[in-house]
Amino acid sequence: MRREIIVFLTVVPAMLAAGQSPSSAPIFGFGPETSKAEQTWEARFKTIPDAKRVHANMQHLAAHPHNVGSDYQRQNAEWLVARYKEWGWDAHIERFDVLYPTPKERVLELVSPSHFVAKMDEPPLAEDPYTHEKSTQLPGYNVYSADGDVTAPLVYVNNGMPADYEVLQRHNISVSGAIVIARYGGGWRGLKPKLAAEHGAVGCIIYSDPADDGYAQAEVLPKGPMRPPGGIQRGSVSDTTLYPGDPLTPGIGSVPGAKRLKISEAETIMKIPVLPIGYGDAEPLLKALAGPVVPAEWRGGLPMTYHFGPGPAKVHLKLVSAWGQKPVLDVIATMKGSEEPDVWIVRGNHYDAWVNGADDPISGQSALLEEARALGELAKQGWRPKRTLIYTAWDGEEPGLIGSTEWAEAHAEELSKHAALYVNSDENGRGFFGAGGSHELEELVNSVTKDIVDPETNVSVWKRQQAALLVRGGRRGGGTPSQDALSQTTLPIEAIGSGSDFAAFLDHFGIASLSIGYGGEDRSGTYHSAYDTPWFTDQFGDKEEVYGPVLAQTAGVLVMRFASADVLPYDFTSMAHTLKQYDREVKELVKSLQREAETRNRNIEMRLYAITDDPKQGLQPPPSLVAPPDVDFSSLDEAIASLEKAATHFNAARAGMGMLNAEKRKELNAELTTVDRKLLGDAGLPRRTWVKNLIYAPGTYAGYGVKTLPGVREALEQGRFTEATEQLVIVNKAIGDEANYIEALVAKFGAGQ
Amino acid sequence: MRREIIVFLTVVPAMLAAGQSPSSAPIFGFGPETSKAEQTWEARFKTIPDAKRVHANMQHLAAHPHNVGSDYQRQNAEWLVARYKEWGWDAHIERFDVLYPTPKERVLELVSPSHFVAKMDEPPLAEDPYTHEKSTQLPGYNVYSADGDVTAPLVYVNNGMPADYEVLQRHNISVSGAIVIARYGGGWRGLKPKLAAEHGAVGCIIYSDPADDGYAQAEVLPKGPMRPPGGIQRGSVSDTTLYPGDPLTPGIGSVPGAKRLKISEAETIMKIPVLPIGYGDAEPLLKALAGPVVPAEWRGGLPMTYHFGPGPAKVHLKLVSAWGQKPVLDVIATMKGSEEPDVWIVRGNHYDAWVNGADDPISGQSALLEEARALGELAKQGWRPKRTLIYTAWDGEEPGLIGSTEWAEAHAEELSKHAALYVNSDENGRGFFGAGGSHELEELVNSVTKDIVDPETNVSVWKRQQAALLVRGGRRGGGTPSQDALSQTTLPIEAIGSGSDFAAFLDHFGIASLSIGYGGEDRSGTYHSAYDTPWFTDQFGDKEEVYGPVLAQTAGVLVMRFASADVLPYDFTSMAHTLKQYDREVKELVKSLQREAETRNRNIEMRLYAITDDPKQGLQPPPSLVAPPDVDFSSLDEAIASLEKAATHFNAARAGMGMLNAEKRKELNAELTTVDRKLLGDAGLPRRTWVKNLIYAPGTYAGYGVKTLPGVREALEQGRFTEATEQLVIVNKAIGDEANYIEALVAKFGAGQ
Repeated sequence: MRREIIVFLTVVPAMLAAGQSPSSAPIFGFGPETSKAEQTWEARFKTIPDAKRVHANMQHLAAHPHNVGSDYQRQNAEWLVARYKEWGWDAHIERFDVLYPTPKERVLELVSPSHFVAKMDEPPLAEDPYTHEKSTQLPGYNVYSADGDVTAPLVYVNNGMPADYEVLQRHNISVSGAIVIARYGGGWRGLKPKLAAEHGAVGCIIYSDPADDGYAQAEVLPKGPMRPPGGIQRGSVSDTTLYPGDPLTPGIGSVPGAKRLKISEAETIMKIPVLPIGYGDAEPLLKALAGPVVPAEWRGGLPMTYHFGPGPAKVHLKLVSAWGQKPVLDVIATMKGSEEPDVWIVRGNHYDAWVNGADDPISGQSALLEEARALGELAKQGWRPKRTLIYTAWDGEEPGLIGSTEWAEAHAEELSKHAALYVNSDENGRGFFGAGGSHELEELVNSVTKDIVDPETNVSVWKRQQAALLVRGGRRGGGTPSQDALSQTTLPIEAIGSGSDFAAFLDHFGIASLSIGYGGEDRSGTYHSAYDTPWFTDQFGDKEEVYGPVLAQTAGVLVMRFASADVLPYDFTSMAHTLKQYDREVKELVKSLQREAETRNRNIEMRLYAITDDPKQGLQPPPSLVAPPDVDFSSLDEAIASLEKAATHFNAARAGMGMLNAEKRKELNAELTTVDRKLLGDAGLPRRTWVKNLIYAPGTYAGYGVKTLPGVREALEQGRFTEATEQLVIVNKAIGDEANYIEALVAKFGAGQ
Repeated sequence: MRREIIVFLTVVPAMLAAGQSPSSAPIFGFGPETSKAEQTWEARFKTIPDAKRVHANMQHLAAHPHNVGSDYQRQNAEWLVARYKEWGWDAHIERFDVLYPTPKERVLELVSPSHFVAKMDEPPLAEDPYTHEKSTQLPGYNVYSADGDVTAPLVYVNNGMPADYEVLQRHNISVSGAIVIARYGGGWRGLKPKLAAEHGAVGCIIYSDPADDGYAQAEVLPKGPMRPPGGIQRGSVSDTTLYPGDPLTPGIGSVPGAKRLKISEAETIMKIPVLPIGYGDAEPLLKALAGPVVPAEWRGGLPMTYHFGPGPAKVHLKLVSAWGQKPVLDVIATMKGSEEPDVWIVRGNHYDAWVNGADDPISGQSALLEEARALGELAKQGWRPKRTLIYTAWDGEEPGLIGSTEWAEAHAEELSKHAALYVNSDENGRGFFGAGGSHELEELVNSVTKDIVDPETNVSVWKRQQAALLVRGGRRGGGTPSQDALSQTTLPIEAIGSGSDFAAFLDHFGIASLSIGYGGEDRSGTYHSAYDTPWFTDQFGDKEEVYGPVLAQTAGVLVMRFASADVLPYDFTSMAHTLKQYDREVKELVKSLQREAETRNRNIEMRLYAITDDPKQGLQPPPSLVAPPDVDFSSLDEAIASLEKAATHFNAARAGMGMLNAEKRKELNAELTTVDRKLLGDAGLPRRTWVKNLIYAPGTYAGYGVKTLPGVREALEQGRFTEATEQLVIVNKAIGDEANYIEALVAKFGAGQ
C-alpha cells in the first residue's frame, strides 16, 4: 500500500558525525570479541540470498489475483507456512475475521450536458497473460467507501487537499451538494473524500491524471511502463489517521467473540461514496466542466483546458457494496532466541495485493522470504539469534493495515512487554536505500548500510545515499544538494507516520520501528492496478531482481545485529538531536503562523486583495487568520536537554554494560526493550485516542505523511492554541520520563563507568 | 515585438523611501510656483484622452495586415502624418531602405519513419473576418533565417537554451548534423537557432507548445483567447544582441548611399534555416521521436511522451527567401520647446505588425496617438513644452528594431547632443503599471504613477503596484511578497536590455530611457499570429480600451514633467543605489561560480555522478568547471560611492538650481542632457562594439533580457576572467567620470547652496 518510499531531507548536525569506521572498530552494539564473531556470521549470511529465488517467489505469489478473502490468498498463506517450516522456522497462520466490503454495483455516468457512461474497466493486454484473469480480479473501487446513489453537479478540486479548498474559496466556488472529481496525488487518497465531505460534497471521484503516472512521464502500457487510459488506482479510504485495522474493532484484535462496533458507529468508514477511475473515463467528465480556468498548479496532462465547474457537467454516482466479513490470514514464523528469548524482533511485509501485486507488495515480500530462508540456512550452520525473531507476512494491508494491526492488538500485552524492534518493508526496487523510523535506530541503520554493497555501483549503499545527498539533495533528486553530507558519518533517517504495517507498532504501541527499502530508479504507472503483474516486472522492473537480495542482506544484517548485540543497539543521542530539530520547527511554526496572520489580516484591512485581483475574475479575499500567542517552549528545551544528557551517559556506559555478565545483560536488555513506551500518551492524541505516540503520528490532514510532536504541531496548525500548550505539557513529561528511565538504567547497570 | 512587459522584482533600500508626498509637496523637478502651474496643466491634460478614440485608432491601424513594405503600412504612415498635422504637430515620414527578406518557399516534412507534410497555415476563423485576408498576410516565418535545404534526424531540445544543452550533454545526445525542434519560451527565439548552430545543428524548428499559450492555459480560439493548433508565432531571429537595425548597416543610418555590407558579411543574419510552426504541425514530428524520455521540465502539453530523439524521425526542411530591400517608414512629429528647444524628449512606439497586430503593437500605438492628440489639444489651449517633443511611430520594429535604430543612427550627432529622454511603449493591456529603464528616472516614474488613477480599482496605479508587491511579489504573481514595499515611497523600476525600440537610444547612445506599459490581466495566445486582430481585442482583450487612456495619461504626464521641469528630473541617488545592488550581485556571482566549480569538480573527482546516475540511463557526468579567481571589487565600490556622493550633492543643490535665471538653467539643462553619455564605452562591449552602454545591455545568451554591468558580468559567466578585470576597469572609470561630471555641475551651478 505504501507508495512513497522514504526520502532523505533532513540533515543531522555535524556533532552526530562521530567516529564509526565499520572496517576496524567493533560493530555498533558489540564489543571487540563479539563483533568478530558477528562479522563472520554476517559474511556467511550475505552470500546466501539468491536473485533467482527471489524472482521465483515473486512469480509464485503474484501468479494470480490474491486480495483479502480470495482463494489464491489462502493458497499463498499455506504456501508461506510450508516454506517457513521447510527453512526451519516455527510457523502458523493467525486468522482474523474482519469487515471487508466488496463492490456489488458501480455506476458512474455523465447525465448532462451530454451522456457518457464510465467503463471502469482495465482492458487486458495481449502481451500480458496475467491481465486476462478477469474473473478473479477485484474491480476498481475504494474500499470502505460509503454506499450511495447521488446525482449532482461536478466540481474539479485538483488534489482535493486543504490548500485546494483555499483556492476554491478565493474563486467563490462551493462543493456543497456537489460531486467532486479529484486528481490522485498531493496527499493520501482518503483525505480527498474526507475533506470533500467536510465541505459538503455528496460524492467523490478520484482519477489518475496522465501528467502524474501516465503518458507525460513515459510511454504507457504495453509500450512503456506508465498507466494506460483504463488503468485504475484502487485503494483504501478508511481513515487510518484515526485508527487502522478492522473498522469495527478499534484497539482490540478481531478475534472470535471480540466486541464489534456497528458499521454505522465505525468512524473510519468514509461518509460519502467515492470511486477511482482512469483518465480515459475522467476526460469526458472534465471536458464537460465550465466555470473559471484553474490555476497552473491544478492543470493535468489531458489535452484540454481544465475548469473548476461547477457544472454544467452533472454526474450520477451509484455504489453498492457487499458488507461482509472476510478472513485475514497472517503468517507468523518464529525463531526462538538462545539467550534472551523474551526480547522480540518483529519483521514484516504484507503479502495481500489489490490484484496480482507483483510490485506492491510482492517485490518486498519475495525478498523478505529470501532473507528468512537465509537466516534458516544460517541456523542450520550453527547460528542462533540471542533474541527471538518473529517473521511475518501480513494479510489485509491494502484495505487498512488490517493484518498487522489486528495481530498487534491481539498480542498487545506480550508485544508491549517483549517487542524491542519492528522492521517493515513493502514494495522494493532498483535504486537507493531509504529508511524511516524511530531515531534511536539511526545509528544502527547507518552501521548496517555501510556494510552492504550496492550492486549497480559497487560502493556501499550508504555511500550511494551520501552521494545522492551531495549531488541532488536526496535519492529522488530535485532537492538542494546537502554539502554537509560530505562530513557526516551518520546520514539521517526520516520520520514516518502511516501507510504501511509499521503503524500499529510505532503509533499505538511505541515500539522502536523502521521502514526500509530500495527504489527511485524504475518508474511505473501500475500502482494498485491490474497491470502490476510478473510480466510487467520482467518487462519494465528490476527483472534480474538485483535489489531483492540486497534488501534481504540489509534487513537480515540489521536483524542479526539487533538480535545478537551485547546491548540493544539504540542510540538515544540521535533521538535527542532529532527532537531538537523538531523543537526548532515548532518554534518556527509559531512565528510563521504569527507572521502569516499578521500579513493576511493587514492585506484584508488594506483591501490589498481587492486592489490586486483582476476585477473580471470575481474573486473574494481569503479569510482572516487568528495568530497563535507566543508559546513558551523552554520546558521542551529542558526535557530534550535532559534526554541528551541521559543519552550521553548511556553511550559512555555502553561498553561497560556490554561486558556485564549474561544475566545482568539480559536484565538490562529486558528493561531497555520497553524504553520507548515512555513516549506514549495514555490518553492518545486529541480526537484520536488510538494514536498514542507523542513523537511520531500520521497527520490528520497528511494521511500517510508524518507529523512529529503531533499533539503540539497539529494543534498549532489547526488553530487550537490552548490545546497546543496542553499537549506541550504532555510531550515534555514523556521526554523527561524517557530521560529518567535511561538515567536509571545507567545508574543500575553502568556503575562500572 | 516585446512580449514580456517589465516585472518588478528588485526591492529598493528603505533609505530611498525619503519624503515625497505628491499632493502637498512640489512635483519632483519643480519649485513651489512652477509646480502649481504644472499641476493645473496636467489636470487639464488628463481629462482629454478618450477610450473611444483609442479604440477607433486601433480599428483603423489594425484593419489589414501591415508588415514592413506592405501597402497598408504605407497608408498607415500617411494617415499618421495627417493625424499629427491635424493635431498641430510638425510631422513627416522618414524613409530607410533596408534588407528585408520574405519567404518564397517553405517546406517542412517528416520523411521517415512515416511521411507527414507540415501545413504551416493559420486557418481563418468563421467568427473573425480579419483572419480571412489571406492574400496580404505574411506566412509564418522567422525573418533573417538562412536559406537552406537540409534533411536530417530530429532532436528535441526543449527551449533550446544553454541549460538545455547541459541536459543533452548529460544524456550523451549531440545535435551535430541534426535538425533541432525547440519549444517557444524560456528565452528569446533568436537564441534557439543561434545555440543550435553553435552546437552543430543544420536546421531549427520552433513550435508553440499548448502548455505555454495553448489549451493548457485557457480555451483556444475561437472559444477562448489561446493559440489554436494552427497558430504560428512569427518573429525575428536577427541577432540583435550584436546590433539591431538593418543587418547591412551596423552603426549608420540606411540612408541612400550608405555603405552596405554584403549579406554574407552581416553577422546578425542566422547561420542555419529556422522555421516557426504551430503545435498541430509539431505533434506528428515530436511523436516520431524515440530515445530517452525527457525530464519533467521539458514536457509540454501535448498528449504524448516527449522523447529527446535523435530519430528515428528524419525531417526535410527547405527555406528560400526573397532577399530584397523594403522601405521602412518612420513617422516623426515635432513640437518645438519654448525655452530649451535644444533639449529633446523622444517618445515612441512601433506601428508595424507581423499581421494585423491589434495588440502588438497597436494597443500601445493607438494610446500613444491619443496622448499626442491630447498634447496638441493642450497646446491649442496655450500650453507649450519648454523642451522639444519628438513623437514617433516606428516602422520595422518586428524584424529587428529597424525603424528606431536607423533613425537614431541617421541622427546620431544631434541625438547625442540633444536627447535627454527616450520613452518607449509597445503593446498595452488591462492590469498593472510596469516600467523599466535608466535608474536616474526612477524617482520621476514614481512621482507620475502616484498621480494616475487605476480605472479598475480607483486607487493610484502606484498603489496598485505596491499592493501587488505586498500580496504576491509583483504584478504577475508567483514572486515572494515583499513586505518592504509597505514602507517604500519609491518602488523600483527594472533594468532593460532589448526587445523593443528603446535599444538604440539606451544601449548605443546612452540616452536615459524608459519602457512603460500596463498589463498582466488578459491572457492571449495570439502573439505574432494572424489571430491578433481587432475582432480578438473586442472579444477577449481590453475591449473598452480602459487602459489606453491610462497609458496616454501616464506617458503624457511623464513627458510633460520632463519637458517643463525647472531642472531635468534625474535622480542620481536611485542610480547609485541600484549600482550598489549590481555590485553586490557580481560579487556574489564570483562566489557562486567558485562554489559551483568546487562542488562540480569534487563530484567528478569522487565519481559521485557515476554513483548516483541510474546505470540503465547511460548518462555521462557534466564537464568540469574552471573557478574564477577572487576579484577585487574595491575600485567599483569606490566609484559607486563617489557617484552616490555626487548624487547627494546634486540633490542638495537642486532647489537652488531651480531658482537660477532662465539662461543659467538652460545652460545647466543642456549640460545635464548628456550626463549619461559618460556611461558609454568608446570601444563598446567585447565582440559587439555597437553595444556601448556599460551599465545595461541585452545579454548575449539572454536575448531581450538585460545584463547589468554587462562587460564584467558576462565575462565572469562565460569564463573569461582576465576580460572581467579589464572590463571592471572600464566601467569603474565610466562611473567615476559620471560622478565627476555631476560634481562639476554642482560646482558650476549650485554655488548658492
